[in-house]
Amino acid sequence: MDLFSKIIKPTLLLDRDKAVRNLDRMLSKADTQKIRFRPHFKTHQSTEIGEWFRSAGVNAITVSSVEMAQYFAAAGWDDITIAFPANLRQMDEIRTLSRQVKLSLLVESVEAVEKLGNELAAEPGVDIWIKVDAGAGRTGVGWDAAAELKQVAEAVERFSGLRLRGLLTHAGHTYKVRGKTEICRTYHESVDRMNAARRSLADHGLVNLEISVGDTPASTLCDDPGEVDEIRPGNFIFYDVQQYLAGVCRAEDIAVALACPVVAKHPERSEIVVYGGAIHLSKDYALVDGVPAYGLVCLPENTGWGAPLPGAFVRGLSQEHGVIRLRPDDLDKIQIGGLVCVLPAHSCLTVQLMRSYLTLEGQRIHTLN
Amino acid sequence: MDLFSKIIKPTLLLDRDKAVRNLDRMLSKADTQKIRFRPHFKTHQSTEIGEWFRSAGVNAITVSSVEMAQYFAAAGWDDITIAFPANLRQMDEIRTLSRQVKLSLLVESVEAVEKLGNELAAEPGVDIWIKVDAGAGRTGVGWDAAAELKQVAEAVERFSGLRLRGLLTHAGHTYKVRGKTEICRTYHESVDRMNAARRSLADHGLVNLEISVGDTPASTLCDDPGEVDEIRPGNFIFYDVQQYLAGVCRAEDIAVALACPVVAKHPERSEIVVYGGAIHLSKDYALVDGVPAYGLVCLPENTGWGAPLPGAFVRGLSQEHGVIRLRPDDLDKIQIGGLVCVLPAHSCLTVQLMRSYLTLEGQRIHTLN
Repeated sequence: MDLFSKIIKPTLLLDRDKAVRNLDRMLSKADTQKIRFRPHFKTHQSTEIGEWFRSAGVNAITVSSVEMAQYFAAAGWDDITIAFPANLRQMDEIRTLSRQVKLSLLVESVEAVEKLGNELAAEPGVDIWIKVDAGAGRTGVGWDAAAELKQVAEAVERFSGLRLRGLLTHAGHTYKVRGKTEICRTYHESVDRMNAARRSLADHGLVNLEISVGDTPASTLCDDPGEVDEIRPGNFIFYDVQQYLAGVCRAEDIAVALACPVVAKHPERSEIVVYGGAIHLSKDYALVDGVPAYGLVCLPENTGWGAPLPGAFVRGLSQEHGVIRLRPDDLDKIQIGGLVCVLPAHSCLTVQLMRSYLTLEGQRIHTLN
Repeated sequence: MDLFSKIIKPTLLLDRDKAVRNLDRMLSKADTQKIRFRPHFKTHQSTEIGEWFRSAGVNAITVSSVEMAQYFAAAGWDDITIAFPANLRQMDEIRTLSRQVKLSLLVESVEAVEKLGNELAAEPGVDIWIKVDAGAGRTGVGWDAAAELKQVAEAVERFSGLRLRGLLTHAGHTYKVRGKTEICRTYHESVDRMNAARRSLADHGLVNLEISVGDTPASTLCDDPGEVDEIRPGNFIFYDVQQYLAGVCRAEDIAVALACPVVAKHPERSEIVVYGGAIHLSKDYALVDGVPAYGLVCLPENTGWGAPLPGAFVRGLSQEHGVIRLRPDDLDKIQIGGLVCVLPAHSCLTVQLMRSYLTLEGQRIHTLN
C-alpha cells in the first residue's frame, strides 16, 4: 500500500501491465489481419508510453495537432499523420515538420489544398489524405459527394509537393452505439461508403488510393476489417467507462484510474465527496441507466484497484469536487482522508487534464503538456 | 488586427477593460452594502490578475485547493480561505500554510475537526468555518441538522489551534435557475437557512459566528445581501455563456473568448469546424432552447470581438474539434484559415484548460498551472 500512502491529491494511476496487454492484443489482431497499424497517440500523449509501442514494432503514428507532431518528432518518430484538417495558420510549423518527417496531412477543401500546395511548393512534399465524412457528421467531404471529392483530389494532383495517398475517415458514430453487432454494422457501413468514394474517384482515373479508418470500438470488436489499408485506434491503450459500457472492453481492461482523496461522507444520502472534479476528470460522461456518470468507483488494493463497486458512480462534478453515489453497505469501507479510485468516463480528456501518470510501480510519466 | 494575425492556434483572449469593469461593479456593490468581499480566485488563477484586485483594495481571498493557496501565498496574499472541505492527506502543506498566512479552512465532520485539531495543536492556529449545505446538495452539514452542527462546532471549540469563525455555504443551486427573481429567491432562502443554523448554535451558547455566502449569480443580481458577513463570488470577473443565458450578465460583460482557427466549412449543413475542442473549452455547456451549447460565436473586430452572431453556437466538441452551427448568411463572413472567437459556456473550466491568457493589448498572462 506504499503507493497509496504517498498520494495526497488527485493522481492519475496507470496500470502498465493492463496497457501493454491492450496494446499486444490490438497489435496481434492487426498483424493477423495484415493491416497497417498507425495508432493514435492523442490518448496517451507521452513519449515514454510511445516507447512501449516502438518496442512492440510500431513505427507509424497518428496525432491530432501540429504541437503533438512536433513533440513526437522530437522523440524520433518519423512517420506521422496529423489526423485533423490542416490548420492553415500553422504553415511555418507544417513546413518545418515536412522537412523532418514523413508527414501526412488531411484536407477537405480545394482552398486548403491550394494554400498547402503553394506554401509547400519548394519542400520535399507531404502525403495528403482527403478527409471523408462516412456518416459521423463532424467533418470531411461527404462520402457520396462525388463531384466534390473529385475536385479536391484533382486539386491535390496539381501540386508537385502534395502526394495524394488516399481517403481517411473517423467513424465517430461507432461511439454512439453499443454492442458488437451495432458497432460492427456501423463500421462496415462506413467502410462500404469509403470504398464507394474510392470507386467514384477511380472512375476518373484517380487510382491506387488507400483507405484509412479506425476507431477503438470497431478495431477492438470487429473480426473483419473489410477493404481498408490502415487503422488508427487510440483510446484502446487505456479504454475507459464509455468503452466499457458500450461493450467494447471489460472493466478490468481499463488501465487508468484517478486516485481521489475522500473529503466528506453523507450517509443520509449514501454519497461521498472526493477531491477530484471537472478539472481532473473532465465533464465528459457515460450514461448509466440514462443518468450521466462521470466515472465508476473502485477501492484501492495492494495490486492497484479492485473491480468497480456495484451501483457506485460519480454523479456530479464541480471544479474540484466529485460527488459519488454508492450503496449504503459500501459506505463503511470508505473513510474521510482515505482514497477511492475513479475509472474515468473518457480517458483521453482525463489524461489531457492531469498531464502526468503515476504507474503502480511508482514511476512518474509526463505527457506533452 | 495585428493581435489576430499572430494567433495560429486556440488562444484565450482576455479583454482587460471588461474584467476590470466587472470587478469595479462588484466591489462598489459590496462597499455600498458594507459587506466583506473575499473574491474567489479559482476563476482566474493568476497572480497577475490578482494584482488588479489588490490595487482595487482587496486583501482577503478565497481559493479552492491547497495548491492554489500556496501559489497566492507566495505572491503575498496573507488572508486566504480554502473553500473546499479540508483534505486531510495534505496536512504537511496545511501546517506550513498556517504559519505563513491567516488561513481559513472548511470542516463538516467531527472526524476532520479532530484530525486538524491534533495535527495543528502546536501551530499558530487556523480559522475554521463549518461548511453548511443550505440546499445545493453537494457537500456540508445540513442547515437543519441542528444536532450535527452542534457536534461539529463543539468539537472545534475543544482544540486550541482551531478558532471557530462561522458558517459557510455555497448556494450552488442559484446556478440552476434563471432570472433575477428566481435567483434572488433561491439566494434569500439559503441566507434564511444559514441564519436558522446560526440561531440553533447560539441556543447552545455558540455565539458571534459569522456567515459567509456568495456566488456570482446572487452577488451580481440581488439588491440586498441579507444577514451575512462575507461574500465570495469568483466567476463575475469574466462571466460566461452560462451566466449570460441565466440572465446574470450581458453578453458584452463576458471578458474572455477563445480565438479558434477555422479549418472547414460545411455550407450544406450551415456549419463550420474550428480548431478548438474539449481540451480547450471543456465539455461544460449551457442550454440554448434545450440544446447543449458549448459556447457562443463572435467575429474578431479591431477592438476585440463583436456581439455573438445570432443563432450561432458550438453544437459539438471532440478532443480538438469544435463544430459550430450558424445562420447561412453568416457563413460568408468566415473563411478557412480565418478565426472566430468563442465565448465559453463556463469560463472557469476554460481558463483551467488553457492556462494562459492573451490580452487584447498582446500581453501574455499565465495561471497557476
